[in-house]
Amino acid sequence: MTQLESAAKGYITPEMKRVARKEKCDPVSVRKNLARGRVVIPGNKKRNLSKLCGIGSGLSTKINANIGTSKGSSGISQELKKMNAAIELGADAIMDLSTGSGIKRTRREILKKSSVPVGTVPIYEIVIDGLKRHSRIKDIKISEMMAVLRDQAREGVDFFTIHAGVTQHALSLLKKNPRILNIVSRGGAFLAEWMLKNRRENPFYEYFDEVLDIAKEFDITLSLGDGLRPGATADATDAPQIMELITLGSLQKRALKAGVQTMIEGPGHVPIDQIETNVILEKAICNQAPFYVLGPLVTDVAPGYDHITSAIGGAIAASKGADFLCYVTPSEHLRLPTLEDVKEGVIASKIAAHAADIAKGIKGAMDWDIAISKARAMRNWKKQFNLAIDKARPMEYRKASRPGINDVCTMCEDYCSIKIAEKCLGGKR
Amino acid sequence: MTQLESAAKGYITPEMKRVARKEKCDPVSVRKNLARGRVVIPGNKKRNLSKLCGIGSGLSTKINANIGTSKGSSGISQELKKMNAAIELGADAIMDLSTGSGIKRTRREILKKSSVPVGTVPIYEIVIDGLKRHSRIKDIKISEMMAVLRDQAREGVDFFTIHAGVTQHALSLLKKNPRILNIVSRGGAFLAEWMLKNRRENPFYEYFDEVLDIAKEFDITLSLGDGLRPGATADATDAPQIMELITLGSLQKRALKAGVQTMIEGPGHVPIDQIETNVILEKAICNQAPFYVLGPLVTDVAPGYDHITSAIGGAIAASKGADFLCYVTPSEHLRLPTLEDVKEGVIASKIAAHAADIAKGIKGAMDWDIAISKARAMRNWKKQFNLAIDKARPMEYRKASRPGINDVCTMCEDYCSIKIAEKCLGGKR
Repeated sequence: MTQLESAAKGYITPEMKRVARKEKCDPVSVRKNLARGRVVIPGNKKRNLSKLCGIGSGLSTKINANIGTSKGSSGISQELKKMNAAIELGADAIMDLSTGSGIKRTRREILKKSSVPVGTVPIYEIVIDGLKRHSRIKDIKISEMMAVLRDQAREGVDFFTIHAGVTQHALSLLKKNPRILNIVSRGGAFLAEWMLKNRRENPFYEYFDEVLDIAKEFDITLSLGDGLRPGATADATDAPQIMELITLGSLQKRALKAGVQTMIEGPGHVPIDQIETNVILEKAICNQAPFYVLGPLVTDVAPGYDHITSAIGGAIAASKGADFLCYVTPSEHLRLPTLEDVKEGVIASKIAAHAADIAKGIKGAMDWDIAISKARAMRNWKKQFNLAIDKARPMEYRKASRPGINDVCTMCEDYCSIKIAEKCLGGKR
Repeated sequence: MTQLESAAKGYITPEMKRVARKEKCDPVSVRKNLARGRVVIPGNKKRNLSKLCGIGSGLSTKINANIGTSKGSSGISQELKKMNAAIELGADAIMDLSTGSGIKRTRREILKKSSVPVGTVPIYEIVIDGLKRHSRIKDIKISEMMAVLRDQAREGVDFFTIHAGVTQHALSLLKKNPRILNIVSRGGAFLAEWMLKNRRENPFYEYFDEVLDIAKEFDITLSLGDGLRPGATADATDAPQIMELITLGSLQKRALKAGVQTMIEGPGHVPIDQIETNVILEKAICNQAPFYVLGPLVTDVAPGYDHITSAIGGAIAASKGADFLCYVTPSEHLRLPTLEDVKEGVIASKIAAHAADIAKGIKGAMDWDIAISKARAMRNWKKQFNLAIDKARPMEYRKASRPGINDVCTMCEDYCSIKIAEKCLGGKR
C-alpha cells in the first residue's frame, strides 16, 4: 500500500510517525491530512530514506535544491558535492535536473547517496535519450516515455515532476494570450514541441492512468508540474497559467482516488500583490493539495540576485500557505549554479521558509528566534553562531573585524545599545 | 519658507517640480501630499542637492544607506567610498552614523560630497562629544544638545533622526513588559540612560518646540526615531513600541502645524504576519506621514544574511504602504559593514523597493521588468545586463561559464526552453 492508501484505511505508518515526531505534532493529524491529499511523504518503496519529510498542511515549510549536470558543464562528483552541501545546510529534498551526458549514472549516484527524497523530471531523460534514437522530439513514442518513467521508478526516484497540465486547450489559450516569455519550463517546452508538431494531446494527460499505475506501484509522489508558469512578472496569473492549474486540480483528484500522493507546482515570476491570490487559487482549485512553488521571483530586474527576489516571493507564498519552496540560486537565468551558488540558494530559501513558519504559527518555529535573540542579548557570540542558520559566515565576519572589547561588535564598540540598556534597565534575562 | 509651508500656501516649488518630473507624476499632487504631511522632500536650505527625492504617498519607494565610522574601525576615505558606491547603485539618501573619532570632519566631508540627502542622528555626536567634557551621559546639558542640533543644521544636514518618543511613559511600559532585547536603538539607549539617571523627561520631547524651530529655520526634515523598536521578532508590536508610535503621531501633528517636514521611523525585527499591521498602525496613528522602516527583519536566526531577512520584510512593508527603506547589510549584528557589504545591502534593498513598487502600481515600475524580460526573450545578454539592477555580477557569472552557443546559458545549453518555445509557438515579440 502507498502512504496515501494506508492513511485512507486509517493506518498510521512508521513514516507518518517519524514525520509527526520531527514536527512535534500528532500522528493522527498527519494521517488525516495525508488521507485527504493535504500532506505527502515522498519516498519510493525501494528506498529507505534516513531523512524523511512531510510536506503540506500543518507542517513546517520544506525546501528543495535542484542539482544536476548540463552539457559541457559539471560532472557527477561536482553535483554530489552540491547535493551534500545542500543537505547539510538544511535542504529537505533534492531534484536531479541533469541534462548533460551520463544522465542515468548521475541519477543512480544521487539516489545511492542522498539521505533526503530525490525528485526528477522524467521528460528530460525521455527527450535527451530519445534524441539519440530519433532526430526530432516529435518522433519519440509514448511507449518510450512510459518506459523511462518505469526505469526511474525502479531505480528508486521518490517524486516525479509530470507536466500533465500542458494541454492543447492551454496551448491554444497561450496562442491567444501571447506572453513576453511564452514557456520557460524546459519540460513544458519539450512537451509543447511534441504536442504541436504531432497535433496530439499531452501524452501524460492522455495516459495519466498509466502514470498513476507506475507511481502507485512504487509510491512515487507526483509533483504536477507547471509547464506554463510565468517567466516574467508581466505574464503572471494569466489564462494559460490558470487553465493549467484547473487541469492539475482535476488530475490531483484522480490521483487521490488512485492512492497516489500528489503535489501541485506553482509559479514562477509573480508580482508581490498577486502571490496570495496564487496560493488561494491553488488551494481552492486543487483540493488543498501541497503547493510547491518555484520562487516566486517578485521582479525580473535582478539577475545575479535571484536568490533574494525568490526569498521575498517564497516567504510571502509560504506565509500564505505554500508548503514547499524550490530554491533559486544567484545564477538563475545566467548559468549552471556553482557549489557556492547552491549554498547561497539553500540559505536564502531556508530563511524564507523559516520566516514563513513563524507567520504560519508552526510549532517551535519562534523558539529558534527566541534562543538566538537571548544569546544576542547576552552577547554570547559562540552560542549565536551555533544557533545561526549558517555559522560559517557570521564567524568569518567577526573574525575579520574584532572589537577592542569582546562583548560588543565593531558596529557600535563602546556604544552598544544592548549593553547600555542592560545597565540602565536591568540585567540579563 | 519650508517646502511644507510653500505647499500649504499653494506654491509649487522647483523642488516639487523636480520630484514630479522624476516620478512622472503631477506636481499638484506632490504639493497636495506635501501640504498634508504625506510627502517630504528632504533638503537643508543650505544645500543644493543634485539628486533630490520625494518620499511618501504616490511616489516610488526610496532607500537609505547608512555609513559612518566607529571607534577603531574605518576612516573618512573608506566611508566616502561606501557613500559613492551606495549612490551609484541607487541609494536615494545616506545617513552618516559615525561614532568614531572625527565625527565632525567625517560629516562635513560627506555633506560636501553627497549628491543625495544626508541624515544624521544628532544624539550620537551629543553623547560622544559630551563624554569628552562630562564623565557620564547624565551630565550632558540640554543646552549642549540643542547646540549640536544647531551646528549640524548650519552645516547642511538634510534630515535628523530624533528619538522624541522614548518618553518616561514608554520606558515604564518597557519595565512592565520586559523584552528579550529591551532597547536595540543606540539613540534610544543613550536617551534612556540620560532620562533614567536624571529622572527627567526625554529632552527632545520636552523641548520639541526648540527642535522644531531649528528644523524649520533650515527646512530640515525630522525623522521621528523609533528608539523602542523591537530587536527580536518575539518582541515585536508590543506596548512600548506602540506607545512610542502614539507619541510620534502627536509630535508629527505639531511638526505639520509648525511647517516642519516629518517622517516616522518603524521597526525593526517583525514577523511577516505582523508587518501589514505595523504599516496600517503607522499610517492611521501618524496621519499618513511617510513611513521609514529599518528592515524589518523577518527572523533573527540569519546573522550574515540579514540583507535577505530585511529584503523580505522591506518588500512586504513597502508593498503595504511603507515609503522609505533603510538598508541592512550582511554584517548587521556582527561588525561595521565593509564596502562589499554596503553594495550587497543597497542592492537587496533596491530589489525590495522595486518589487514593492510593482505591487503598489507605481507608474513605470513594471516597464523596467517588461524591458528586461523582452531582452531575456531575445537572449540579448548585453541588453539584459545593461538593464539589470547591478550589471557587474551577472556579467561576471556569464563570463565564468560560457555556453557552446551564444544565445543560451549553461543551465540548459541545447535545451533552452525559451528557444524551443520560440520555434514552436512563434517568433520574437
